[in-house]
Formats: sequence, structure tokens, C-alpha cells
Amino acid sequence: MRGFTEETATEIVLARLSECNDDRLRQVMTSIIRHLHTVVREVEPSEEEWLDAIQFLTATGQMCDDKRQEWILLSDTLGVSMLVDAITNRKPVGATESTVLGPFHVEGAPDLPHGANISVEGKGEPLVVSGRVLGPDEKPLEGAELDVWQANPEGYYDVQQPDVQPAMNLRGRFRTRANGKFQFRSVKPCSYPIPTDGPVGRLLSALGRHPHRPAHIHFIVSAEGFQPVTTHLFVAGDPYLESDAVFGVKKSLIVPFELETSDERATLLGVTAPFYSATYDFKLSEAD
Amino acid sequence: MRGFTEETATEIVLARLSECNDDRLRQVMTSIIRHLHTVVREVEPSEEEWLDAIQFLTATGQMCDDKRQEWILLSDTLGVSMLVDAITNRKPVGATESTVLGPFHVEGAPDLPHGANISVEGKGEPLVVSGRVLGPDEKPLEGAELDVWQANPEGYYDVQQPDVQPAMNLRGRFRTRANGKFQFRSVKPCSYPIPTDGPVGRLLSALGRHPHRPAHIHFIVSAEGFQPVTTHLFVAGDPYLESDAVFGVKKSLIVPFELETSDERATLLGVTAPFYSATYDFKLSEAD
Repeated sequence: MRGFTEETATEIVLARLSECNDDRLRQVMTSIIRHLHTVVREVEPSEEEWLDAIQFLTATGQMCDDKRQEWILLSDTLGVSMLVDAITNRKPVGATESTVLGPFHVEGAPDLPHGANISVEGKGEPLVVSGRVLGPDEKPLEGAELDVWQANPEGYYDVQQPDVQPAMNLRGRFRTRANGKFQFRSVKPCSYPIPTDGPVGRLLSALGRHPHRPAHIHFIVSAEGFQPVTTHLFVAGDPYLESDAVFGVKKSLIVPFELETSDERATLLGVTAPFYSATYDFKLSEAD
Repeated sequence: MRGFTEETATEIVLARLSECNDDRLRQVMTSIIRHLHTVVREVEPSEEEWLDAIQFLTATGQMCDDKRQEWILLSDTLGVSMLVDAITNRKPVGATESTVLGPFHVEGAPDLPHGANISVEGKGEPLVVSGRVLGPDEKPLEGAELDVWQANPEGYYDVQQPDVQPAMNLRGRFRTRANGKFQFRSVKPCSYPIPTDGPVGRLLSALGRHPHRPAHIHFIVSAEGFQPVTTHLFVAGDPYLESDAVFGVKKSLIVPFELETSDERATLLGVTAPFYSATYDFKLSEAD
């Protein structure tokens, strides 16, 4: 029998995978076991630290319910979600860059007409978002879908405040017109902290990190025959653009939200002055 | 702003630790983040696989309660617990080797006299365990404590079957005599599976691994002025000695459990023939 020592541990554990018939699972677990053991060797945890880690991992699962996913939050705050996103969404140069989906997307947001307002409660500074969805060579795409969602001006999504916000507040699905154009009304988003009352919040605090995300609007843009993109538009000038708690910001996704004061423009767009406007052209690459 | 890409991800996340005032936490998280990102790069998980991982991690925490610690089980079955044990219990050559504590130790087992029987229910094949506790140079240690616990012949600890087994069944604390000797009665332990009804059981099954541990008795042996040792004695000949689900076996801890048939010996030891006997000398090293 081969003795289990600091030196032999990893090879002994990996040898135990020889009966695994699932090649992919064996590959994944081999990588996980190797690096997990390397962390233990690098860190040399005391038994007390090991038990602290066990308790942290346990508490992270126990914080989860149908409205809260603390493990996704941990993945987000350690940059794992964005790294997975980068790997699974390698796109040609020129296509709109992707970023994290986040935990607050909801299936079945209402289909809304061009120009409609996604703010059901109407609280906040008026905003008009417009632009185009383009294919390669800047070709406008008609009938492309934009699934849009955002937090309210207090920084909460409707699903976080079911007793405060109307259902489907600040959510909607839009289709582009023949010239590839879309337009909708909303309210200006603000920066907000990710939930800090769980193990991940306590970890961030111990690490000297703030929990804030810069103001943003979420989009999933899709069109038949093209690769869909899950992304955000970020508000230029936000103080947290350089230090997003979940590492979601990409320079190409930062957009000026211009303050407009013209009553004439406001009337034309269905808002009252002063209001903000933002414009962005999404570029999709062809499906494989 | 530095773009978050597959190449820059790790350095960007690590840079965010610069405000951490806890040097040890920063060191630990640096190692964890580096290797976690390396696993993601090696494995290139799809979004579906990433979500499967999130769900596995969540379920592992949610399986835990005051009687069940699924995260310790995961640590055990991936060899992490034994590796931490190896690192935190580096011992001089000759000292009794350590192995995992396991999840079933209970504080406050009864103090019992030399020769007492730890089997309260009395079910199983009679067993007498004896030996000595020695210091360096084989010096017998008087008054050393042996905290002993084991599963019953069906493979369950008392705390797993509170409605079936009497409290403190198969648990006891003994002290060595002037010549360093200890002796107690029990029943022969058997091999048993670790709990398989949770995420860890399903993972082992998917990996083609069995969940069994070879038959063993747990010990924590301690004496003032010496390093305590947490260990097991394993039954020689057990079919799972080479493939313990938690990697706990060390060759030096495998002991013959001899079948004895002499009525005279049995009467002397307070059992009835046939019975098993096992003998082991624990060797403690001096405290630092």
C-alpha cells in the first residue's frame, strides 16, 4: 500500500478516478483536485482555518433560496463568472462585448412597442434609450429582440421588492424596426451594492473591498442567424466603473447619459424635460 | 481602464485585494483566486456546466445540519482533510501517525475504568483492545488519556441512530496505568459506507467510486507534555484498506484482530469465547 503523505496525496486521490466512465467529469475533477491540493500546500491551513473554510462554504449554500443565490455572488465577486463569460463568449473583433447575466434576469418580460416606458411606477429621472442592432458590415437587422431589465433608482430590482415595486417594473422586450432601430423610455439607473448581509458580503468587507456595482442597464440582444449577446450598458462617469464588485465593466460598454433640457425634444420622445438620453448600436456576429 | 479578458482576469481580481489589512486572509485568497481561475482556464466550462457547479455547491451546503456535515464529507472524499491533517500534524519518525477526526467525535464521553466495556447495547462479536501509551525512547506514560469511539456492527455511530442506540454507546475515555498499559472491551467494528444520500454520494457514484470505509476504531491519545494524536486502528484484512473512501488508512495503523477461542483467556478478560483481541502501542512525541 502506498502511504498517503503530503507528497503522494494528489496522485493517490487522482488514481481513484480510474473507474470513472464520464471522460468530461474525470477531466474536470482532475483539474479541481490538483489545484485544490496545491492551494492546501501553498496555504498550509491550520485545522481551525480549515474548519472556518468549511463553515464559510456551508453558510454560502445555506444563504441561498429561490430569490437569493449566494454562490453566484461568490463566483461574481471572485471574477469567476466574468472569466467563464469571456471563455464561453469569444467574439469576433467589432461585435458587442458580453458581460455577466447577473441573478435578476426574469423570463417572460412583456413585449412592448417601440418607444414604450419600462418604468411602471414612474419614479426617477426620465431616460430615453435608443440605437440600432447591426450585423457584420453594419447591416441593420430588422426584428432583432432586446430583452431589457434594470434596477430602480433606489438600486433594487422588482424581484427584490415584491411588496414595493409592481411586477415587471423596469423590464421589457423590444423589436427593432426595418432600419434596425430601437427606442424605449425608462429612468436613469444608479449604482447599488450587491447584497451584503451574507457570507460574501462579510468576505468582501474582510478583504477591504466595497460591494458596489456602477449604474447599468441589462440587455440580451438576439436575432435569428446571429449569436445573441448578454451585456450591460454602463453610465459614463459613475464612480464605480473602475472597481465594479463583480468585474463586469468593459470600456466599450460605457455610454454617455446626456442631460437634455429641450421641451420640444422631450415632447417628441414622450418625456418631460429635463431628461437623460443614451444611444448605443449593438453589433451581432453571425451564428456558427 | 484595463480590459477584463481571459488573459488579464486574474491580475485584475488580485489587484482588488490591495486594501486588505489582514495579511493572512490576503495570502489565502490570492492562492484560492489564482488556482480557481486556472481551473476555469483548464476546464473551459460551458455556462450550463458552470451552473451545474453552482447548484452542486449550493446543495452541498443545504445538506448540512447539526447532525450532518456534507462539506466535511466532500473535503474527506477529495483527500483534502487527510492532506490538511498531514500538514498540520508533521510528526517525528516513530511517533504514531495521525488520521482524520471524522464527523462523529463527541465531547464528554464517559470516563471508564481499565477493562470496561464501551458497548452499552452489547451487540456484536466480543473484542478486547489493549496496549500501551509510550513516549520517546519507549518510555511508558502513566495517566495518558485514550478517547475512544467506533461504529456499531451495523456501521452506525450512536449519534446517527439516537432512537436505536443508547447514548454514548461505543464511546469511552480511559487512562493508562503506571506501566503505560490500557485495556478495554468492545465489539469488532465493521466496514461501512459514508452517507450516500447527498451531493457527495452522487458525485462518488458518478466518479465510479465506492463509498466504503474499512473497519476501524477511533482514538485521540493525549498526555501532558506530549503532542496528542488523533488516529484510527484499522482491522487487518478488511477489503477496503486499499480504497478507503476518505483516504484515511496508513499502513502503520493496520492491526491484526486475532480470533481467540480459549475459555480461560476469555474469563480472564471478562468476555466469552470466541472473541477477538487487538494490541497496539501508541507512541507520542514531546510537545514543542
